[in-house]
Amino acid sequence: MDIDFDVKHGLEGVAVAISSISYIDGEKGKLVYRGFEIEDLVENSHFEETAYLIWFSSLPNENEIDFITSMLAKKRTLPKKIIEMMKSFPKNAHPMGVLRSVVSLLGMYSKKDSSTLENAINLTAKIPTIIAYWYRIKNNLPLIPPKESLKHSENFLYMMFGEIPKHSDLFDKALILHLEQGMNASTFASTVTASTLSDIYSIITTAIGTLKGPLHGGANEKVLNMFKEIKSVENVEPYIYTLISNKEKIMGFGHRIYKTYDPRAKILKHWIKDLFLKDNVEYFEIALKVEEIVIKEFKEKKIFPNVDFYSGILYNYFNIPSEFFTTIFAMARIVGWTAHAMEYRKNNRIFRPRSIYNGPKGLKYKEVKGVEKNG
Amino acid sequence: MDIDFDVKHGLEGVAVAISSISYIDGEKGKLVYRGFEIEDLVENSHFEETAYLIWFSSLPNENEIDFITSMLAKKRTLPKKIIEMMKSFPKNAHPMGVLRSVVSLLGMYSKKDSSTLENAINLTAKIPTIIAYWYRIKNNLPLIPPKESLKHSENFLYMMFGEIPKHSDLFDKALILHLEQGMNASTFASTVTASTLSDIYSIITTAIGTLKGPLHGGANEKVLNMFKEIKSVENVEPYIYTLISNKEKIMGFGHRIYKTYDPRAKILKHWIKDLFLKDNVEYFEIALKVEEIVIKEFKEKKIFPNVDFYSGILYNYFNIPSEFFTTIFAMARIVGWTAHAMEYRKNNRIFRPRSIYNGPKGLKYKEVKGVEKNG
Ligand SMILES: CC(C)(COP(=O)(O)OP(=O)(O)OC[C@H]1O[C@@H](n2cnc3c(N)ncnc32)[C@H](O)[C@@H]1OP(=O)(O)O)[C@@H](O)C(=O)NCCC(=O)NCCS
Ligand SMILES: CC(C)(COP(=O)(O)OP(=O)(O)OC[C@H]1O[C@@H](n2cnc3c(N)ncnc32)[C@H](O)[C@@H]1OP(=O)(O)O)[C@@H](O)C(=O)NCCC(=O)NCCS
Repeated sequence: MDIDFDVKHGLEGVAVAISSISYIDGEKGKLVYRGFEIEDLVENSHFEETAYLIWFSSLPNENEIDFITSMLAKKRTLPKKIIEMMKSFPKNAHPMGVLRSVVSLLGMYSKKDSSTLENAINLTAKIPTIIAYWYRIKNNLPLIPPKESLKHSENFLYMMFGEIPKHSDLFDKALILHLEQGMNASTFASTVTASTLSDIYSIITTAIGTLKGPLHGGANEKVLNMFKEIKSVENVEPYIYTLISNKEKIMGFGHRIYKTYDPRAKILKHWIKDLFLKDNVEYFEIALKVEEIVIKEFKEKKIFPNVDFYSGILYNYFNIPSEFFTTIFAMARIVGWTAHAMEYRKNNRIFRPRSIYNGPKGLKYKEVKGVEKNG
Repeated sequence: MDIDFDVKHGLEGVAVAISSISYIDGEKGKLVYRGFEIEDLVENSHFEETAYLIWFSSLPNENEIDFITSMLAKKRTLPKKIIEMMKSFPKNAHPMGVLRSVVSLLGMYSKKDSSTLENAINLTAKIPTIIAYWYRIKNNLPLIPPKESLKHSENFLYMMFGEIPKHSDLFDKALILHLEQGMNASTFASTVTASTLSDIYSIITTAIGTLKGPLHGGANEKVLNMFKEIKSVENVEPYIYTLISNKEKIMGFGHRIYKTYDPRAKILKHWIKDLFLKDNVEYFEIALKVEEIVIKEFKEKKIFPNVDFYSGILYNYFNIPSEFFTTIFAMARIVGWTAHAMEYRKNNRIFRPRSIYNGPKGLKYKEVKGVEKNG
């Protein structure tokens, strides 16, 4: 048999596709979308424009930016039946479970003949509405319908809170940082779904369910919960050293590819520091102390803060509850998920790896069950 | 960087886990669950017992079979709110989309402290109810609640049709054939979801969405639709030769691992032939002719009928509409999905492969956009 018996645990270092979407340099800590470094994009671009770049492989001209902006603005509303169903969901349902379910339900309402790209834009437009509506329903607040005149990120904050908070540009830029990251677990899982030629709703449902896990997007929620537990800078040392001596993973640290400071975490930290100098930013001092200890203690394993370590502090600054953090990640990453699914399909092959069998062989039912041979 | 630049397209031949659940010999056409050949199991065992074998790694004793049978029987009912929501779904929704959505919704109703195994059994018990209820709702028929006294497969047919049809043992045995098949695309995708430590509802939602694709479980529906289009044995030749000359894939043929007759297809064909000799079995003669031509024409590529080629003829015999075929696959395969998720978690590592970048490098926003350097 033609199997490589050396198990590739976690598929580390195994290339599963050729892609022109993004490039990661894990040694230098660089992340590049379609040739542009993310530092350059957060400085100069905004969500709609970078999403266009990722989907269409070049920056949009004036007509193109108008097109994508209006598509994303017009598709924000949810079918009435879906809103009714959401109102009947148990109020303690986790926002990621709600998002996974509503995206799946939306599959029933999609037009049969719309292209994958149209569906991708449609879902990208609707996800912020799902998140904001669930936030309002959960908290018994009246729903705030989307406003077409607002840009993607501002409209989301408006649907959540009824107003656009100051520094909302940082929220927009934080989305840019989360748009795409190569073959991370959620993108990879959804590419596997795409490879059977399943539909886009299945693809994105897979991605959301995979992102939900605490080793992946779920980490940002866990990080903030850790800060809440730590409460004050004095408690950082005993708290972190207890985790270390219990050999527990510290949430928001480590990465399969970055073996240096995650460039996204560096950018977020920089913004938060600036904010901190002029405003009250919760947990920043705790985070700095956690980081200091972890980097010191894990020097040999090269473990640094990842994007999920600092993103929550920013979302918390915007009054987004920690339970909703991973949905913000999804709201941005859907751009990468859909871009990868479409790219993979151009040269599609079903994913069908192997496992190495180490179980028993040659068992016979009647012998094991003690049934007589001719009984 | 430590990447193997040789892209493993579709991960053919790459081992991603060590597993004691099943063994496939693709050259000899053998499928073995936990040491038992499937021929032995379909002859002697039944759904509940083989499911126990796959989950717990040995055949159950009397207490154990009572335990699993009663667990699977007691957990069949759906929350009332879920049934209400299902009644409001668009009637033309595809059963696989409904199954994916309802499994996702059930995640909101699960007890926080139940183990993955309990949840696995719970979902396995409920999936037949979801399928049968959707069939009845879609066709404006009154719902038939599950009966605890019936075995898993019989209860499903009873909830669908209000009675247990003759030869229902073949339906039970067909489920056994579909329980497990190593790292196929749906099992693999759901293992990736499991590897982020996400919850079981996310894991199974991923699996269902992945199975839905026509290159995977979705093929059984497509096969029957092909038979319907072919209509009569005389039309087989022109129909199939047209597909071949258009280089279209013929549904129900080919497999990544079996390079000989799929043992499951062989068993199904044998049963159907027996049935055919005593009863009216639609499409069997068409299937025989399709098979003859495809095997002859693809001799060099070693393409043979797979499990999806014959399963639909049997389901159709039981009056299950073709749209529902892939949900029957899911109803069985959930056992393999959950067994793999639990096994992988014992030695968990997040799946995070690589892609090889072939896009542009070194682009600068201001240069591309024509914005002045200091503007
Ligand atoms: C992100 C993550 C899943 C990457 O997994 P991975 O590439 O398989 O990492 P590895 O398990 O190979 O890590 C190498 C070593 O560092 C350790 N390590 C990795 N992340 C760690 C963390 N956050 N805290 C403590 N130790 C960690 C591992 O235990 C391993 O130690 P060992 O060699 O003694 O077994 C992992 O770092 C992690 O679980 N981090 C916490 C969750 C998180 O923040 N996720 C968000 C990612 S954006
Ligand atoms: C099952 C399946 C996805 C396996 O994919 P795979 O392992 O990547 O198969 P490959 O593409 O390597 O197949 C090898 C060759 O056989 C051809 N082939 C495979 N299945 C074929 C089919 N059903 N009809 C016609 N040609 C087929 C491929 O085109 C390929 O030809 P090439 O070498 O000239 O490119 C594939 O056989 C298929 O699409 N079958 C039809 C769908 C189906 O029945 N799925 C249910 C599986 S249980």
